[in-house]
Amino acid sequence: MNHYILDNVHIVTTNKDERILKDHYVEVKNGTIQQIAKTPVPKNKEGLIHNCNGKWVMPGLYNTHGHTPMTLLRGVADDVPLNKWLEEQIWPREALLTKDRVEAGTSLALVEMIKSGTIAFLDMYHLQMDRVFELVMESGLKAVLSRGMIGFGSSQELQSKLTAACNMAEMWNDAGAGQIKGMLFPHAPYTCPPDFLESVVEQAHKRNLMLGTHLAETKTEVMNHQDKYGKTPVFHLHELGFFDQSTILTHLVHPTEEDMTLLKNKPISISHNPMSNAKLGSGIAPIPDMLDEGMMIGLGTDSAASNNTLDMFEEMRFAALLQKANQMNPAVITADTIFDMASVNGAKMLGFSEHGIIQEGAPADFIMVNAEEAHLQPKENMLSHIVYAVSGKDVTDVFVNGEQLMKNRELQTIDEEKIRFEANACFQALENELKT
Amino acid sequence: MNHYILDNVHIVTTNKDERILKDHYVEVKNGTIQQIAKTPVPKNKEGLIHNCNGKWVMPGLYNTHGHTPMTLLRGVADDVPLNKWLEEQIWPREALLTKDRVEAGTSLALVEMIKSGTIAFLDMYHLQMDRVFELVMESGLKAVLSRGMIGFGSSQELQSKLTAACNMAEMWNDAGAGQIKGMLFPHAPYTCPPDFLESVVEQAHKRNLMLGTHLAETKTEVMNHQDKYGKTPVFHLHELGFFDQSTILTHLVHPTEEDMTLLKNKPISISHNPMSNAKLGSGIAPIPDMLDEGMMIGLGTDSAASNNTLDMFEEMRFAALLQKANQMNPAVITADTIFDMASVNGAKMLGFSEHGIIQEGAPADFIMVNAEEAHLQPKENMLSHIVYAVSGKDVTDVFVNGEQLMKNRELQTIDEEKIRFEANACFQALENELKT
Ligand SMILES: [Zn+2]
Ligand SMILES: [Zn+2]
Repeated sequence: MNHYILDNVHIVTTNKDERILKDHYVEVKNGTIQQIAKTPVPKNKEGLIHNCNGKWVMPGLYNTHGHTPMTLLRGVADDVPLNKWLEEQIWPREALLTKDRVEAGTSLALVEMIKSGTIAFLDMYHLQMDRVFELVMESGLKAVLSRGMIGFGSSQELQSKLTAACNMAEMWNDAGAGQIKGMLFPHAPYTCPPDFLESVVEQAHKRNLMLGTHLAETKTEVMNHQDKYGKTPVFHLHELGFFDQSTILTHLVHPTEEDMTLLKNKPISISHNPMSNAKLGSGIAPIPDMLDEGMMIGLGTDSAASNNTLDMFEEMRFAALLQKANQMNPAVITADTIFDMASVNGAKMLGFSEHGIIQEGAPADFIMVNAEEAHLQPKENMLSHIVYAVSGKDVTDVFVNGEQLMKNRELQTIDEEKIRFEANACFQALENELKT
Repeated sequence: MNHYILDNVHIVTTNKDERILKDHYVEVKNGTIQQIAKTPVPKNKEGLIHNCNGKWVMPGLYNTHGHTPMTLLRGVADDVPLNKWLEEQIWPREALLTKDRVEAGTSLALVEMIKSGTIAFLDMYHLQMDRVFELVMESGLKAVLSRGMIGFGSSQELQSKLTAACNMAEMWNDAGAGQIKGMLFPHAPYTCPPDFLESVVEQAHKRNLMLGTHLAETKTEVMNHQDKYGKTPVFHLHELGFFDQSTILTHLVHPTEEDMTLLKNKPISISHNPMSNAKLGSGIAPIPDMLDEGMMIGLGTDSAASNNTLDMFEEMRFAALLQKANQMNPAVITADTIFDMASVNGAKMLGFSEHGIIQEGAPADFIMVNAEEAHLQPKENMLSHIVYAVSGKDVTDVFVNGEQLMKNRELQTIDEEKIRFEANACFQALENELKT
């Protein structure tokens, strides 16, 4: 297989004790990082040498929450209350999402993610996920996929949704050869009745599938749940066994104090989606408290319909600044912590790494950044810039398992121009259909 | 002078009744927008035709607050409390800012601003502002400049600072031929004693110079002022005559209710710097209340030492999302309002336009955006994308008074490569000097 050396780079690692390695080379062989060492490359080394003078090598980013097909709905509605957004803008369009349109939205998301330095993501959607699986496989990105389940319908219908979701997850686990993992993702406690959630948990544990859900996204959701069941959705999920094994909780903007106490010793991780939570007016998750409790937190963009990009660099920056503003304390969260959320924490949460990234023996999953951009000068403080100044548009190259998905901003595995054309064609058709 | 036509563009105007003009051309003659009309261009038209197929033309952005020399200090310190940031990190470096280093920082800021679509800005600094004036003139950008005044020193020293600031402002007004305006910008009520502020106000009114200051940036500032003088800094400035004529108030994160009542009928405008206020932990300005009171609000980045970029697109997005998150209400501020803040409001505040922008007869001040980027697809909802998805890196061309400052991302008036080199060289020298 492939064997090459990226020479003359500066590296930002996930190792806090040795964050920055200047003037190094990275040797990749058979999809794995073979060696990281100080330049010059020894004369007797095999492998093709690429001089990447001055570029930064850093971990690819992990987007822990999204709905790729909805990328087709970018910008259709902003600045309206959540119920109007869903009922008047999103749901009527989702009802018209044919297979072609799902494909157009997901393909566009894959382009955008690669072009902004994301190398792995979690995706949950209720339509055409078998096609999404195929598109992700072709793109070369890593992903955790789930055929979303909303708990409306007869118990027979629910049972068949669950069976379908389980079968797809297991099939993807087998067919994806490690690139794709299947998981179970019931939509939320307010859309899935307790007995259905219980059977989802049972299947997840029986089949050893990762579990996730949307949880405590809005105050209204938490209040309504308490009114209806006499307990918070967090406590309710706990009773249903949801936290007995590894689970990704998405949003968690409004946990109570008791919820926090309960969760801190459970095998859960949190997908924090600050831009989506802001744009939809859901609120500000208590991230500093969660960090104090030692909880594992990753970042996610949620869909482009509520963000409106999939740029994880912007998500990092927003996550940091939002907490500082809200707590009126610049020290409440650091660039170090935010960088870990978007990289090594995300990798762990999605099950793609037990030991961290950018080190010898690890899969060659990393990206390169053009350090020559004006907004990154003076370029000395690399970690600061990655969190507070780099944009996804500064990413030049993307590698997954040693395969190059983007080369100097040109995509290598998918046809960007065709996808852009089809996204616009599908969108126009959808809007025209909506009007009739 | 120049005469050309940008053909086949989509235009986002500042006219709310006709926001989007699709498939138009823009004719520029002698630095002015001569005509805006639907394609095709009539056969008998003179002027060189540039086919800009599919690009978006939009107003250039107005950055209403900054300190360009401090761009050299990007990333030197993050995530620390304000006093440590200033005393241990910023001030020791500012003490070493020679003329060369000011030039390096300002030049870098000019590059970054043009490359991210800013066409006019306000700049206030206490060192080498005469050199800053020359650099801005050469760049072709429009600016409002002030030789900053901090009110420490004997009354004779203060008087001589004020005289210098007044003379520079008047000289720039004359020499800048409309491209540059001079203003008076005493640093803040907590660094300038009342009698000094009074004489600044007197000079500003006498010489008809615009006035501005930092105000109510932190809670501590407001509390200390009340302790010391028995009134808020806003009331104090009012008593000193500060609001009798046109004044730009920067930050205003912590006005009291009485401050708001006082200010709403004064000829003031507000420079809102949400990313800097967030990064330094100052807090969240009550923008929705200010809008309710009909106040004029523009956006500013503040310096790259507390932001850490000068990208006004990011500032727009952050300003919108921060308020939605904080108020838990997605409707609390709209893309429309945010767009006006960064464009037409900024233009009015800086005195560069009485009548709005991108219309026939107005100065040819506008930018073009590459609408082909993946994160802008589907491209139908242009205004949404400008606020929620466009990055400064998507700007391809910048025009000021019809002169092209950037052409397909290549700067036309200043030498980017040289400036990047010098910024790094000056920074290294400064850091080395700091260590010894
Ligand atoms: Zn979601
Ligand atoms: Zn300032």
